[in-house]
Amino acid sequence: MAERTVFFVSDRTGVTAETLGHSLLTQFDGITFVPITVPFVDSVEKAVQVARRIDWEAERTGCRPIVFTSFVHNANRAPLLRSRGLVLDYFAEFLAPLEEELGVQSSHTLGRTHGMSDASSYNSRIDATHFAMDSDDGHGIIHYDEADLILTGVSRSGKTPTCLYLALQYGVFAANYPLTENDMESGRLPKPLLEHRPKLYGLTISVDRLIQIRRERRPDGSYSSSRQVRFELRSAERMFRQHGISYIDTTHRSIEEISSTILSETGVKRRASP
Amino acid sequence: MAERTVFFVSDRTGVTAETLGHSLLTQFDGITFVPITVPFVDSVEKAVQVARRIDWEAERTGCRPIVFTSFVHNANRAPLLRSRGLVLDYFAEFLAPLEEELGVQSSHTLGRTHGMSDASSYNSRIDATHFAMDSDDGHGIIHYDEADLILTGVSRSGKTPTCLYLALQYGVFAANYPLTENDMESGRLPKPLLEHRPKLYGLTISVDRLIQIRRERRPDGSYSSSRQVRFELRSAERMFRQHGISYIDTTHRSIEEISSTILSETGVKRRASP
Repeated sequence: MAERTVFFVSDRTGVTAETLGHSLLTQFDGITFVPITVPFVDSVEKAVQVARRIDWEAERTGCRPIVFTSFVHNANRAPLLRSRGLVLDYFAEFLAPLEEELGVQSSHTLGRTHGMSDASSYNSRIDATHFAMDSDDGHGIIHYDEADLILTGVSRSGKTPTCLYLALQYGVFAANYPLTENDMESGRLPKPLLEHRPKLYGLTISVDRLIQIRRERRPDGSYSSSRQVRFELRSAERMFRQHGISYIDTTHRSIEEISSTILSETGVKRRASP
Repeated sequence: MAERTVFFVSDRTGVTAETLGHSLLTQFDGITFVPITVPFVDSVEKAVQVARRIDWEAERTGCRPIVFTSFVHNANRAPLLRSRGLVLDYFAEFLAPLEEELGVQSSHTLGRTHGMSDASSYNSRIDATHFAMDSDDGHGIIHYDEADLILTGVSRSGKTPTCLYLALQYGVFAANYPLTENDMESGRLPKPLLEHRPKLYGLTISVDRLIQIRRERRPDGSYSSSRQVRFELRSAERMFRQHGISYIDTTHRSIEEISSTILSETGVKRRASP
């Protein structure tokens, strides 16, 4: 398969350049992209070094490297534009129309994105992450008043990664509560959840996928048996329907897709931006 | 302060549009941006509805809304282009030069980014997240062989959120081990860390910031006292230097900045892309 070297270069973390670059590259089949991230290129000297590295790669591979950049300072980007790479810079592309529309100049300030410039937004993310940790897996029930959301479902349906993603990305306070065998047998909503009914959101997953996930964790015993998994999922879904709890099937959905769907359906407000 | 409504619209999660938009908007001071994210706009009908909503906003506020989009299918974007918003589309701008450079057409396939199309990359992120949870705060020492990184430092120096971010974003297996009072007094590297010396990376933080963070958590007692915090941080930093452990001051750095720095300095490979 054809290979192509891809650089993500930024005067800050490079996270924006990586995110945007990957979303484009995934649209191209049949090419293996070899990624190189170079963050904190915050001087012309460093940029000249990166440009040299890009030229070496062009020489070595015989192919023009793709270079995704997100430079706030044009001076630091300039040496890359003289390199042999194809430089795609979304700042350069989009700042001008925005400046025109908004009628103000952009501030060209470093560290605004993925930095700590908005302290309250940043602190929300950290606080929400600690909240998710402390109220994982049915812990921290006494803090449910502070929760924006409480995810519930059977073990390994995707609750923990979703809560952590919602916290780290959006500063949303999400707790998670696993449904146990007792709950399934009684068919009753567990007591700690009853009084927080409006905050509940259910996760479910296909029988086959859950068996596979649980087997990787504990190959033997009823935990990953087809019968047990089938029983748990059927009971959980019945419980969701009975109590009018919205729920989502996570089988073919990524954490990003699950999180976007939940926020969009519940209207829970983001306290921070990614 | 002036207000401006901003739409993030996508036929998938909207994460790319949000990332792009926020990183640009943070460059504009003096304007309050009111964000509205509309994910999963995967039909022309839905796009027409969003276009109508954009026009309503333009009417209501008397200002042209800014619209960040990341549509894979041009047909779904078309109705927005006829709206009264300023539409900035990342895909439309950059796919063409990439197609030309790579000599292939893009596949215009949905759900490639922030979806599950690359199963092994996606599973790495989920596995790494469970690894971070299971080896948080000194737990799961027996799994250190599987760790890519072990972060160490005093309580509340930023270890847990950094490990979780590295896992969710990059699929990096990061454990964290807190330094205890005993470790500080002996000055010796804790036994579980000794044999994993090459995987260690230290976090430190300023005295004032740590006092502030700990006071929010436990206002009274020695945990947040100036004397205790000063002693812990001095001992930890001395230990890092003595054992040649690289470390970073997290005081003025975001999780993204801390993570980028650690990956860039250690050369630990990303197992997944954001």
